[in-house]
Amino acid sequence: MSEQPRAVLVRPGEVVVEQEPVPEPGPGQVLIDVAAVGVCGSDVHYFDHGRIADFVVTEPLVLGHEASGVIRALGPGVTDRAIGQRVALEPQQTCGRCRECLTGRYNLCPEVEFFATPPVHGAFARSVVLAAHRAHPVPDSLSDEAAALIEPLSVGVWANQKAGVQPGDRVLITGAGPVGLLCADVARARGAALVAVSDTNPYRLGVAAERGAGQVIDAAEGPLRDRLDSVDVIIECSGATPAVRSAFEVAAPAARVVLVGLGAATMELPVADIQIKELVVTGTFRYANCYPAAIALAASGAVDLDGLVTGRFGLDQVAEALLATRTDPHSLKPIVHPGR
Amino acid sequence: MSEQPRAVLVRPGEVVVEQEPVPEPGPGQVLIDVAAVGVCGSDVHYFDHGRIADFVVTEPLVLGHEASGVIRALGPGVTDRAIGQRVALEPQQTCGRCRECLTGRYNLCPEVEFFATPPVHGAFARSVVLAAHRAHPVPDSLSDEAAALIEPLSVGVWANQKAGVQPGDRVLITGAGPVGLLCADVARARGAALVAVSDTNPYRLGVAAERGAGQVIDAAEGPLRDRLDSVDVIIECSGATPAVRSAFEVAAPAARVVLVGLGAATMELPVADIQIKELVVTGTFRYANCYPAAIALAASGAVDLDGLVTGRFGLDQVAEALLATRTDPHSLKPIVHPGR
Amino acid sequence: MSEQPRAVLVRPGEVVVEQEPVPEPGPGQVLIDVAAVGVCGSDVHYFDHGRIADFVVTEPLVLGHEASGVIRALGPGVTDRAIGQRVALEPQQTCGRCRECLTGRYNLCPEVEFFATPPVHGAFARSVVLAAHRAHPVPDSLSDEAAALIEPLSVGVWANQKAGVQPGDRVLITGAGPVGLLCADVARARGAALVAVSDTNPYRLGVAAERGAGQVIDAAEGPLRDRLDSVDVIIECSGATPAVRSAFEVAAPAARVVLVGLGAATMELPVADIQIKELVVTGTFRYANCYPAAIALAASGAVDLDGLVTGRFGLDQVAEALLATRTDPHSLKPIVHPGR
Amino acid sequence: MSEQPRAVLVRPGEVVVEQEPVPEPGPGQVLIDVAAVGVCGSDVHYFDHGRIADFVVTEPLVLGHEASGVIRALGPGVTDRAIGQRVALEPQQTCGRCRECLTGRYNLCPEVEFFATPPVHGAFARSVVLAAHRAHPVPDSLSDEAAALIEPLSVGVWANQKAGVQPGDRVLITGAGPVGLLCADVARARGAALVAVSDTNPYRLGVAAERGAGQVIDAAEGPLRDRLDSVDVIIECSGATPAVRSAFEVAAPAARVVLVGLGAATMELPVADIQIKELVVTGTFRYANCYPAAIALAASGAVDLDGLVTGRFGLDQVAEALLATRTDPHSLKPIVHPGR
Repeated sequence: MSEQPRAVLVRPGEVVVEQEPVPEPGPGQVLIDVAAVGVCGSDVHYFDHGRIADFVVTEPLVLGHEASGVIRALGPGVTDRAIGQRVALEPQQTCGRCRECLTGRYNLCPEVEFFATPPVHGAFARSVVLAAHRAHPVPDSLSDEAAALIEPLSVGVWANQKAGVQPGDRVLITGAGPVGLLCADVARARGAALVAVSDTNPYRLGVAAERGAGQVIDAAEGPLRDRLDSVDVIIECSGATPAVRSAFEVAAPAARVVLVGLGAATMELPVADIQIKELVVTGTFRYANCYPAAIALAASGAVDLDGLVTGRFGLDQVAEALLATRTDPHSLKPIVHPGR
Repeated sequence: MSEQPRAVLVRPGEVVVEQEPVPEPGPGQVLIDVAAVGVCGSDVHYFDHGRIADFVVTEPLVLGHEASGVIRALGPGVTDRAIGQRVALEPQQTCGRCRECLTGRYNLCPEVEFFATPPVHGAFARSVVLAAHRAHPVPDSLSDEAAALIEPLSVGVWANQKAGVQPGDRVLITGAGPVGLLCADVARARGAALVAVSDTNPYRLGVAAERGAGQVIDAAEGPLRDRLDSVDVIIECSGATPAVRSAFEVAAPAARVVLVGLGAATMELPVADIQIKELVVTGTFRYANCYPAAIALAASGAVDLDGLVTGRFGLDQVAEALLATRTDPHSLKPIVHPGR
Repeated sequence: MSEQPRAVLVRPGEVVVEQEPVPEPGPGQVLIDVAAVGVCGSDVHYFDHGRIADFVVTEPLVLGHEASGVIRALGPGVTDRAIGQRVALEPQQTCGRCRECLTGRYNLCPEVEFFATPPVHGAFARSVVLAAHRAHPVPDSLSDEAAALIEPLSVGVWANQKAGVQPGDRVLITGAGPVGLLCADVARARGAALVAVSDTNPYRLGVAAERGAGQVIDAAEGPLRDRLDSVDVIIECSGATPAVRSAFEVAAPAARVVLVGLGAATMELPVADIQIKELVVTGTFRYANCYPAAIALAASGAVDLDGLVTGRFGLDQVAEALLATRTDPHSLKPIVHPGR
Repeated sequence: MSEQPRAVLVRPGEVVVEQEPVPEPGPGQVLIDVAAVGVCGSDVHYFDHGRIADFVVTEPLVLGHEASGVIRALGPGVTDRAIGQRVALEPQQTCGRCRECLTGRYNLCPEVEFFATPPVHGAFARSVVLAAHRAHPVPDSLSDEAAALIEPLSVGVWANQKAGVQPGDRVLITGAGPVGLLCADVARARGAALVAVSDTNPYRLGVAAERGAGQVIDAAEGPLRDRLDSVDVIIECSGATPAVRSAFEVAAPAARVVLVGLGAATMELPVADIQIKELVVTGTFRYANCYPAAIALAASGAVDLDGLVTGRFGLDQVAEALLATRTDPHSLKPIVHPGR
């Protein structure tokens, strides 16, 4: 049995490359050689703290869930995928039998297993297995890195779908990290009349403007209500309580508010505003059924994924990749290439 | 010009009957002899405090907005109403030109004028004028009192519509005051699989059970999660922060939470739950386009309105009617009959 | 290996009871002793003609897809069902991987296998196997026959859900066969303001009236527009082209039209009306995710299923049961009890 | 009282310029100097035949309903518009009191009055009056001609909204006239994965391709199913029965079909497909609440309106403008400038 390397978080702050047997694809699964893996804030959080909320790393864990690759082997019964096919990995496995799965919101499946969420290993490895139908073929026009970033783009697709963004809508995105930027891109691709992006980081606001945001707002300079007319949609990507509060102040009647950024478990929300304006407030937990749309948006050029990449690392540099966002103030999306 | 009596709140705690000229219906309006007016908690709040949030009574104000009556005169151009017609009054006037009006959510019209909300007078009067299309004909099978209570029933219709209650749904109503009871009734009439009602008042829970609630829960005895499986819909009618928190704990994935009861302007809400379960949280501000459905529900017997009535008062007893909920622990809905 | 009897359609018009090995439940499946099976019009059609549209019976076929039973054995891995549990059988198996399955409309799965649709055997047998999650537990208050009729009730639940029936809606059901009657029942249970039922069979109209239809209309006496004001919802259950045309004439602006009854493959539809009134026309293909709601509606008494039963037959009387609707003009729903 | 010219259709095929008193804006209205008016197929149809379906020209009629202009005077009570403001005219007046108006679908108001639909005069005149809230301000970046074409763009906005086009959707537009082209533009602006356009006119297909359609299909060369994989959305803009049938053949499960093009009053539709695939079929009648979105799409450059203009005419050349589509095979959108 052949072996392959993978990068394992053995304790907070320490990642080691170890050898493991190459996994075998089971029935309905494929084996994928991993081409590129984006570093997500949640990876960094596990690296730093060994936990996110109730998800605790108690055993060595492979991080990384934004991945692309090439199909290398087919498990029994797989007929609709081919060896050599380039794919974006939708890194979740769901039961297919519960109410959530059967009604089309499989992301809420109580038995969901998600890459790099303990105890499920992620994609910082030479190859991984995945259900064939979660390995989404990508066109050759998409780079490996862009294909990896279909994952965070799906977060943006889902948030915009929840918000029902459509032409004529004025949209505010709070937080200009990678997810906020991608939410802004998707809002623009859906024809929003205005996409305004707020953050306290001028560099990131500059990136937002370059990517096409119609208005960028330095949230450090005062409340949003002083610089923005009311908006129909708020997509909150900062997780910062002050941002949430400031955003609610500019919500138009019947505005939709989608909470994407993870922050405090509870927040003081303006309940009277929710009532008087009949705001609709919801949140997103990953995504469901978003990969095809995300791939199409990236393939058409409507969303630029390659432009988010700010660093490239080998499998033996995973810790460096994880630290990049702190060491480099201009870092947005470090990419690990396990095969290099 | 003939005169008529009306009951005016001249200062907190003091209502006097005074004479005023009988109003004239303008173009598109009708003059309605008021038959019955329900007392709402908001009337009591204005009576006690002279204000609700930013709505302040600065001049003498006629209270009462849950009203029925008989059309007595038609203003110019009214062709689709007739003198003698019995009607339920939808007590709001809207601009008809703004975005909210044109998109069908006229209750959010920034220029809305609502009975008994300062400075707009209400229905504790011998007769009032109203736009003809807001005077909804009722069948003879509905009593005057039931026709008056079409107004709070519309609140229940609207809340259930926002929640999208349908067969199979497990529904929790928190708060068993008149609005909570009517929300429960409508949920049952929409075919909910379970309608559970919680309150801290055992008497009101008894009423809820008599009206058909499938489960009643004394919220004073501990958290809801100990006595209720997860629910698909929460309609919050208490305005009490502990009730809201306790309710969120039993929300199923993708549950809809509708905040009806007015309470604190801000509340600590479980944002992480909203995200992880993708809950949809919204609020209601009165209602739009609900009278026809409410009238049909009452006329068919699906919702019993007469059974809510717990006291009857003349126009000279308005203060007594307003105080009834405090003086009588079993009071639910006192009714003022201005013509008696 | 023990054997059991089943009733097999060997050629049009001929059903024989034969012995087969008792099936074994595979992983995730259960073995169910069949308690009761309703006869559906599609069973009769296969019996008479050996085909429905492109579905052709080329090999001996067991009919029957409206079934209830008792779990007799659990396949490997089944942990959420128990031997002895009474269940309603949702008689379809879907792939769980295609776009339709993943988005919650598994009834449109291109690989769907449905009981009694060639070449998939149905439930006129002593026992059958089924995916555990498609064996829906029923409360003891439901009779075996009612549990079997959860299947056609699900058709009614789905049609009403597609139509979005809610309080205030005026609903027309065309066709008063078992499905039409159940669609009417569900519309009433959802709080429709009016449920009108049309048919050309006075006996069935009488049944509709007894079950609570607000208006019954003999379609033989002239067009619906002469006897019915405009309606917000049309649920077409007759499959008869004249009924469809007559129904469109009474559609209100923005009315929803749901085509349930199977009839001609193409029909002349009033396209100009669809445009000028912006009608929304759709159809139903079986159902998805409807069993829990159907079970709740039957269990609460909102829909009476036992009252539809008009005959009881043993496994050796399946042909008789299939012929009952023709031999008995008052027949609605014959039931086969394979265990008797 | 001063006078102004207008172009009047006096009988089929004959338009004369006559003088009329300059109209006075009533309460809530504005007087608008007309800057540009697009010629629509319906104008041409009235010019040729004197009728469209049940709408018959019995008295002299001013045609033209795609108009822009400058506000010249304000009627009593108008406070939110200013003299000199450039506006796009939404050419309809609705009652504001009926169910359709109050629920946000005012285009279905039974009392709607629409420009250039007998007996309501249109915009081929020096100036016209309009309700102030239907005079939508446009930014200076929009030309007069583009502002006039906000009207047909609104048709495209409405059709796409009905279809719920969103990223990932494969969209087919049948018919590449001005409305089909604009529907395609809006679908692209909403992020559709594919926008395919079919027509039998190669010139128009070329225009569609130039405007960004992802695939153009000459419908004369055979059925669509031979050249197009299944689509999620069909927006039918040809009114041609063969196009409709060919389109249904490529509808994916649960596809949405929106019938925009006016053609035969009835059509043979594939009812079995609607049922088996659960297609959702609807139509559009003009639009409601679409101008703000249309203006935003044009102002952002997402939709190019100026590029549709193929001819310019004075008020004395209205007949010539109406005939242009027949005399010039490359004509798309002739524009009348009443002030030149």
